Amino acid sequence: MAAPPTSGGPPRTDADDLGSLRALVEQARAGRPRAVGRLISLVEDGAPQLPALMAELAPTSGRAHVVGLTGSPGVGKSTTTTALVQALRARGQVVGVLAIDPSSPFTGGALLGDRVRMQDHALDRGVFIRSMATRGHLGGLSAAAPAALRVLDAAGCDVVLVETVGVGQSEVEVSACADTTCVLLAPGTGDAIQVAKAGILEVGDVFVVNKADRDGVQAVVRDLRTMLSMGAPAAPDAWRPPVVRTVASRGEGIEELLEAVTAHAESQRAGGGWARRRRRRAREEIEALALARVRADFRRSAGPRLDELAAAVSEGEQDPYQAAADLLAGR
Amino acid sequence: MAAPPTSGGPPRTDADDLGSLRALVEQARAGRPRAVGRLISLVEDGAPQLPALMAELAPTSGRAHVVGLTGSPGVGKSTTTTALVQALRARGQVVGVLAIDPSSPFTGGALLGDRVRMQDHALDRGVFIRSMATRGHLGGLSAAAPAALRVLDAAGCDVVLVETVGVGQSEVEVSACADTTCVLLAPGTGDAIQVAKAGILEVGDVFVVNKADRDGVQAVVRDLRTMLSMGAPAAPDAWRPPVVRTVASRGEGIEELLEAVTAHAESQRAGGGWARRRRRRAREEIEALALARVRADFRRSAGPRLDELAAAVSEGEQDPYQAAADLLAGR
Repeated sequence: MAAPPTSGGPPRTDADDLGSLRALVEQARAGRPRAVGRLISLVEDGAPQLPALMAELAPTSGRAHVVGLTGSPGVGKSTTTTALVQALRARGQVVGVLAIDPSSPFTGGALLGDRVRMQDHALDRGVFIRSMATRGHLGGLSAAAPAALRVLDAAGCDVVLVETVGVGQSEVEVSACADTTCVLLAPGTGDAIQVAKAGILEVGDVFVVNKADRDGVQAVVRDLRTMLSMGAPAAPDAWRPPVVRTVASRGEGIEELLEAVTAHAESQRAGGGWARRRRRRAREEIEALALARVRADFRRSAGPRLDELAAAVSEGEQDPYQAAADLLAGR
Repeated sequence: MAAPPTSGGPPRTDADDLGSLRALVEQARAGRPRAVGRLISLVEDGAPQLPALMAELAPTSGRAHVVGLTGSPGVGKSTTTTALVQALRARGQVVGVLAIDPSSPFTGGALLGDRVRMQDHALDRGVFIRSMATRGHLGGLSAAAPAALRVLDAAGCDVVLVETVGVGQSEVEVSACADTTCVLLAPGTGDAIQVAKAGILEVGDVFVVNKADRDGVQAVVRDLRTMLSMGAPAAPDAWRPPVVRTVASRGEGIEELLEAVTAHAESQRAGGGWARRRRRRAREEIEALALARVRADFRRSAGPRLDELAAAVSEGEQDPYQAAADLLAGR
């Protein structure tokens, strides 16, 4: 969509739009937080410039190590994220944070006052913090998250931490964005079983038992090890997910966690898992975008037909499978 | 897919399959729990008989009042569901329970021992309890949940309670299955704000503050009322979501909750909202099924092409939007 003409000047053209997009990308590459923020907003809004933006970013994508942090609400994901940011900054790394967890203090904007803890980092040029709300975005999180990662990558991030809540399907999909997925648990929440039930045991590359100063930490670690050992026997050179204990609020165990995360990346790069995972990620992203286009086409061109079919199905005159087949056949 | 031939007999034909499907549907209509269970398993597995099953069920669908219960883990969704089942059975109603919440004691099968509470009901012919795991199901929950509802409807359920966890996108979509959505909160969890952040304030028809014997119940009710009043001003005859206090573990407030749920249904039926919502539900179901077919086609026929495109995107040689366009164009 072209911007409205400014008074006294000629209307802006597509070339201008592309020019200003390129300028924005250049500023993001120079690490300017405002430009990074504006580009992620384009992603979040599903802006019409998105394809052009992705084309601009493609050649320089894929440098950052993407680390996912997932777990139930209350296990301390945000505190761990904060502690990891500090540790990474101390090593001189440029860090991005993408919070997709709706219960995260980094998410939710005006409703929440406790972004305070991250405010020091917000003033630090080596840290980019961004929460994402993707309700209504075509293609959902599975399309938006990789696009936002590309922006953070272009901004020079060495590591991007992606915080998601570990319940529900869409969040598990998001964990597929990560090169390394850390699954967080805490004592006293019956949590190891929840993790197994939610199917996130399989996606964990590193397990973190946070709040390890609390009662019951032994039991959580033991349950976790038992469940991990019940999985399929791994090849001798396969990565074995370590269990790291942390007290993130005091920074305890964070260096060990960072070492485990780094060791996982090295093992993956050495074994070919890194490239394999990134191709799978790209495949899912392409598929999500293609399906989003099909869905947009349904809504644009097949809207009235879809309404007719929906009325017939809700009246019991037609079954939904036949209706779906009719919709696809354009009947 | 045809079943393998049994020894000594002729191979089974599609007509036999359809015959046995019809027999199963007849048994489900007669309220036989085993038949209901087997049909929902077909739904859960995305079985090839699904379209035929939906065609069989279409004419008799849509009778049951679908009541969604959603909220964060720990607010007492399962306890409330149990209490509602008891109250509805006392009224002579046939009740279905569909648990989609991965943290629900009704879900998760062998991993969990505490289905105990529902076991009395499991022996009661007027109650059908079913948990659903839909990982990997084509079309996901948005396709599987309405199909399972049709089965429970055919089994003669007057009311179906759908329990989902109130975090994440897919679960919010599931709440779109319901005629009446109950959003549960509990004191002491900062929960009203979480509800607002997760975007489930908008989907609530009835709000339930459970564990109302605990400290802080006043604050939760007050916060909730404040946030509800901040919404867009409603039309004079619009439904105003009531706030009901319960102590579900002792059955307190459950009659009031049931009255609020029934009042909502009556108001919707009177005002046309009922049919409107069901058409929207059908539209989403048809769309999800159509997209699932497109996705299955991608995987079947475009698999190798998708792999090529994914390799190009992960190497930065192509951007994902162009790749998606190429995939759709069959190039």
